[in-house]
Amino acid sequence: MQTLIQSVLTLQNGTLETVDVLLMGDRIHSVAPARTLPVAPHQRLIDGTDRLLLPGFVNGHTHSSQVWQRGLIPQLPLELWLAHVFDSTPQQLDQFYWGAVSTAVDTLMSGGTCVMDHAYVIPGQELETVDALVRGYKAVGIRAVIAPLIQDLPFASGLPKGCLLPQGASPRSSAELIGLMEEIVAEFHDPASGIYIGVGPTGFHRCSDELLAGCGELSDRLDLCYHTHLLETRAQHRLAQERYGISAVQHLHNLGCLTPRTSVAHGVWIDEGDIDILARSGSTLVHNPVSNLRLGSGLAPVLKSLQAGLNVAIGCDGAASNDAQNMLEAIKLGTILHNVTDEDYEHWLTPEQAVAMATAGGAKGVNLGDRTGTLAPGMDADLVLYNLDHPDLLPRTNPLQLLVLGRPTDVLESAWVQGRQLVHQGQLLTVDTAALHHHLRHQSVAAPDLPIQHRWAEAHYRNVMLRSVGDL
Amino acid sequence: MQTLIQSVLTLQNGTLETVDVLLMGDRIHSVAPARTLPVAPHQRLIDGTDRLLLPGFVNGHTHSSQVWQRGLIPQLPLELWLAHVFDSTPQQLDQFYWGAVSTAVDTLMSGGTCVMDHAYVIPGQELETVDALVRGYKAVGIRAVIAPLIQDLPFASGLPKGCLLPQGASPRSSAELIGLMEEIVAEFHDPASGIYIGVGPTGFHRCSDELLAGCGELSDRLDLCYHTHLLETRAQHRLAQERYGISAVQHLHNLGCLTPRTSVAHGVWIDEGDIDILARSGSTLVHNPVSNLRLGSGLAPVLKSLQAGLNVAIGCDGAASNDAQNMLEAIKLGTILHNVTDEDYEHWLTPEQAVAMATAGGAKGVNLGDRTGTLAPGMDADLVLYNLDHPDLLPRTNPLQLLVLGRPTDVLESAWVQGRQLVHQGQLLTVDTAALHHHLRHQSVAAPDLPIQHRWAEAHYRNVMLRSVGDL
Repeated sequence: MQTLIQSVLTLQNGTLETVDVLLMGDRIHSVAPARTLPVAPHQRLIDGTDRLLLPGFVNGHTHSSQVWQRGLIPQLPLELWLAHVFDSTPQQLDQFYWGAVSTAVDTLMSGGTCVMDHAYVIPGQELETVDALVRGYKAVGIRAVIAPLIQDLPFASGLPKGCLLPQGASPRSSAELIGLMEEIVAEFHDPASGIYIGVGPTGFHRCSDELLAGCGELSDRLDLCYHTHLLETRAQHRLAQERYGISAVQHLHNLGCLTPRTSVAHGVWIDEGDIDILARSGSTLVHNPVSNLRLGSGLAPVLKSLQAGLNVAIGCDGAASNDAQNMLEAIKLGTILHNVTDEDYEHWLTPEQAVAMATAGGAKGVNLGDRTGTLAPGMDADLVLYNLDHPDLLPRTNPLQLLVLGRPTDVLESAWVQGRQLVHQGQLLTVDTAALHHHLRHQSVAAPDLPIQHRWAEAHYRNVMLRSVGDL
Repeated sequence: MQTLIQSVLTLQNGTLETVDVLLMGDRIHSVAPARTLPVAPHQRLIDGTDRLLLPGFVNGHTHSSQVWQRGLIPQLPLELWLAHVFDSTPQQLDQFYWGAVSTAVDTLMSGGTCVMDHAYVIPGQELETVDALVRGYKAVGIRAVIAPLIQDLPFASGLPKGCLLPQGASPRSSAELIGLMEEIVAEFHDPASGIYIGVGPTGFHRCSDELLAGCGELSDRLDLCYHTHLLETRAQHRLAQERYGISAVQHLHNLGCLTPRTSVAHGVWIDEGDIDILARSGSTLVHNPVSNLRLGSGLAPVLKSLQAGLNVAIGCDGAASNDAQNMLEAIKLGTILHNVTDEDYEHWLTPEQAVAMATAGGAKGVNLGDRTGTLAPGMDADLVLYNLDHPDLLPRTNPLQLLVLGRPTDVLESAWVQGRQLVHQGQLLTVDTAALHHHLRHQSVAAPDLPIQHRWAEAHYRNVMLRSVGDL
């Protein structure tokens, strides 16, 4: 199967250019100046006039099952928000299937061709949960990296001193979890079909050193993405000081967890020293601007990170902390938000840089920088074709700026993952979205009462985290 | 004409309730508990099941002709951005007509029923420009307040010392401008048809005291909204110190410009004393979160303003500083953005408060709080019906939270302005949007080269505004 896209606008080395692109099988075969590639009779021809072709975005951090909690959880700081999330987490396997389908569809229809799913898995049904997720992603046809959330410390251990909470059930041991991950990798890691398993320790705050380092060893040995939450909140920053006496980033580095396969979500509270360690280790910072605002976590130092050479990707985060999974929304906010953090506008992110973050930056963050995220010969054909004639992309000014700084919807005309066309004329070709919507409509999770844990924790949290602003 | 909407979810005093709503002529006649209003044979009946009925939002600050500059102007601080905007401002009357149509359509289809257009008007063709705008708004049927931008100081006067720029042409005198405004009011101010003229001095930075006060006198005498830019940037804050030696807000107050008819756009750099003056005067702060980030202006003190009793509205600002005119986007960002400015989450804006800002808050800001922005008997029927069965508003959790914190598109089923139905089954009933898109497609403004003014001003701006961070 060959597809020739003729005279299409695209970004080449950060500049808009009109080119011909030939797709062959699952790969991009060639990229050449417009109207220079010969047309062969067996090729499918696509006229690229008034179209923009970009590598698919990577939704660099999300939690797919939170689709069921969209619109459910109030705006709260992470530590209290989590109590609500735990209380309403779905526990049925088919909800995980449809959660993956919904996350994949929303990501795809907003220009994404790959999802990093830092996935909640049902305790005792971990393999079955991953199986449901894999089936969901395969049904849509999107590329997916599934990193099951694992932790070996109880919830209360993830809070600074004084933020008392019931310890809760003791999670599995580090050794058991590593064994479980080996099983999951053996069963589901399947690069040829675009499904990958990552190791996803929840975050240093809920993981022992043994588990963090064990995940690092697994990532090294099996060439897996290492994905973890890192310093999302001030409480986590404080906890790191209490527990380690050094920065959490330095601690992870000492444990061997930071490599070019590593991506850390949020990093709102990393400082310049942390940025330097992350950059030198070749790791990736995944920025989740909508979630960081919704939970009041803060503004991640994205401009400083990029200036220091740290790779940055963009994520939506789960639908319980960003009640949408729209990549274009996350990219717009992740672009303009940082203008208020640096007076010198020459440091501000351009639309071209934003696209690079969300494509090549995202691909590197999931350890797939050599396969996806770049429009170049030899790369997998993970591509999205935008219709520049759509009203949301008018008038005819700078199409990339309209895409990134506007609020376009339904502008996606075609999309391919590994050369397979998933979207044609704006319509998804794979799953039946009516069935998805039927399930979302009829299987809703009830809004919980104010969780007991919240009421119990609120006073402690308030006492510790709000009465001491400025001492960190 | 009577319309009975039965058993529809709505907000009553900040709480979701299911009610019956009867519209009669251009007004809301009654609001009563669900299934209690009698059905009369001549009424049109609408089943409110799975629907949410809200007062229409007010797009509290925009510049309609910037539709043509959408996607055109780079991200720059206001003072340099303006040089680009001036260089590419449309100068043909039909562009103003279509600019108004486009702004009205985008506002309406994202839940807005009223626009405050702080309108650029072609020098020497001011009445003709306003006429084109009025025709555009009437064609769509939206309520509109048109406040022509007027100033009697040259552009360079609006910058702090050292930010040298060519003075440019001398604008008209204050007396001429006031005379012009009286003419425009006499010709176009027509409350019965939903078209209002406001007085819109560009901002203190480009207006003499005589013009600012003259506008205040006009607003008092003719009961007009007084709308002006205020302390959008640090440069304006510095200029006020240089020119007045007191805060710009205090200065405007001393001139008699701050009344319950006054709304000020941005207020990014107002301090607590300013908030107090604005609140006590009964004025309105119009928050434009997307624009404030895109131009790097800063974070307006919205939470502190609300806590001090200052009325706050939400605006999109013009399409040259927010490359979309989507009210739901502006409301979402204006809600979650401020969570990072206050550690105490009990101060964070709820979806209910966000809706109140964008409806009643916006209506008060355009001096129409007694006519629109509230769903209550006797108010004008400016209402929007959302389809809660739309995939963007699933699963069935908190519909208001999904509307405000999600990224819904095409969720609007019906909309009425002054009792006239403008949208039915998601389709606009009034203007031909195909014609609008044809004009946007074929009349595009070319991207300007880097404006001469920009090159000239950049070094001065950099020298004055960036080498002295922290001295204000």
